[in-house]
Amino acid sequence: MNPGLLVVVSGPAGVGKGTIVRKMMENDPKFVYSISATSRLPRATETEGRNYYFKTREQFEEMIKNEELIEWVEYCGNYYGTPRSLVCSEIEKGNVVILEIEVDGALNVKRMFPDCILCFIIPPDFSELEKRLRGRGTDTEESITKRLSRAKEEFKLIKEYDYLILNDSIENAAQRFFSIVQAEQMRTNRNKELINKFENI
Amino acid sequence: MNPGLLVVVSGPAGVGKGTIVRKMMENDPKFVYSISATSRLPRATETEGRNYYFKTREQFEEMIKNEELIEWVEYCGNYYGTPRSLVCSEIEKGNVVILEIEVDGALNVKRMFPDCILCFIIPPDFSELEKRLRGRGTDTEESITKRLSRAKEEFKLIKEYDYLILNDSIENAAQRFFSIVQAEQMRTNRNKELINKFENI
Repeated sequence: MNPGLLVVVSGPAGVGKGTIVRKMMENDPKFVYSISATSRLPRATETEGRNYYFKTREQFEEMIKNEELIEWVEYCGNYYGTPRSLVCSEIEKGNVVILEIEVDGALNVKRMFPDCILCFIIPPDFSELEKRLRGRGTDTEESITKRLSRAKEEFKLIKEYDYLILNDSIENAAQRFFSIVQAEQMRTNRNKELINKFENI
Repeated sequence: MNPGLLVVVSGPAGVGKGTIVRKMMENDPKFVYSISATSRLPRATETEGRNYYFKTREQFEEMIKNEELIEWVEYCGNYYGTPRSLVCSEIEKGNVVILEIEVDGALNVKRMFPDCILCFIIPPDFSELEKRLRGRGTDTEESITKRLSRAKEEFKLIKEYDYLILNDSIENAAQRFFSIVQAEQMRTNRNKELINKFENI
């Protein structure tokens, strides 16, 4: 009754994806975070193997060539991608693998894993997003402008997602996210063995 | 972000449908129970307009003729059906209408309202179901045998449902049910206005 699941989470920079996902992980050991590989430089607070696997552009291109990534994109001048091995083994174990990736990557994953679910986190409104992004204090003005303009592009693709999660507070958003995962695990098409058992009583 | 929803709940006699649904209603005023019409006689604990609208066979057949029911079936020798008017007006108001009906009726509703969700409540196992049915003390031995054999028939159709809800305890089952409703209200295809707003920022 608790089948493994691949959950893709997207949302504009500053919407609180990371915080919501961390909140989820604290509450349930079944949630496994899939750490991305990237060619961008680490922020001061980020560490190798916890936030990202940091690679040079050359190393990243080698991984692409060897098909070690289930998806990858170039975004704001840097590569981002999802290493294949962890994702597959954790789903098999019945865990819920969370991928935090941007829109193009998410849609690529859906094509490769049609059973995955795509969740997009939305802010209460656009001005709130701008406020959070500035408040974070980790981005240059140029980077903020770029990210806000990118957010508008991403919003054009949210109808391709399965679910919208409103982040009006971290607690509410994490609870909504949890409901989605729990509901998806109860879907009949994810519980064929159980159905088989009841059909043959 | 909280669109109206039609939720159909089925499950074998004795599985605890009524108790779970009542638990849901206590927790949220947005949940509205759609009271069925039936031609069966009231049990000692049942009252008109609260558990069912009790009708004679002749009255029920008149309602069928006048298309006042969105679905109806004959089950164990009695008619059961869902009056149309309440269902439609409550969904329009943004409420969650719960229909507690048996399998054939549920599949008919899905054909007429493809946006509805079908939930089937399952017991931990079949012997547990038999135990609960006997424990209820409201049915004759003949009726119990009939209901158990009917349950086996119903189990053959659970793959037509959207969700399976395990009733290992009323609290757990009600919480699972709530997650399903909450998740469905976050589905992108139920939030076209909101998506439209974000697409045009």
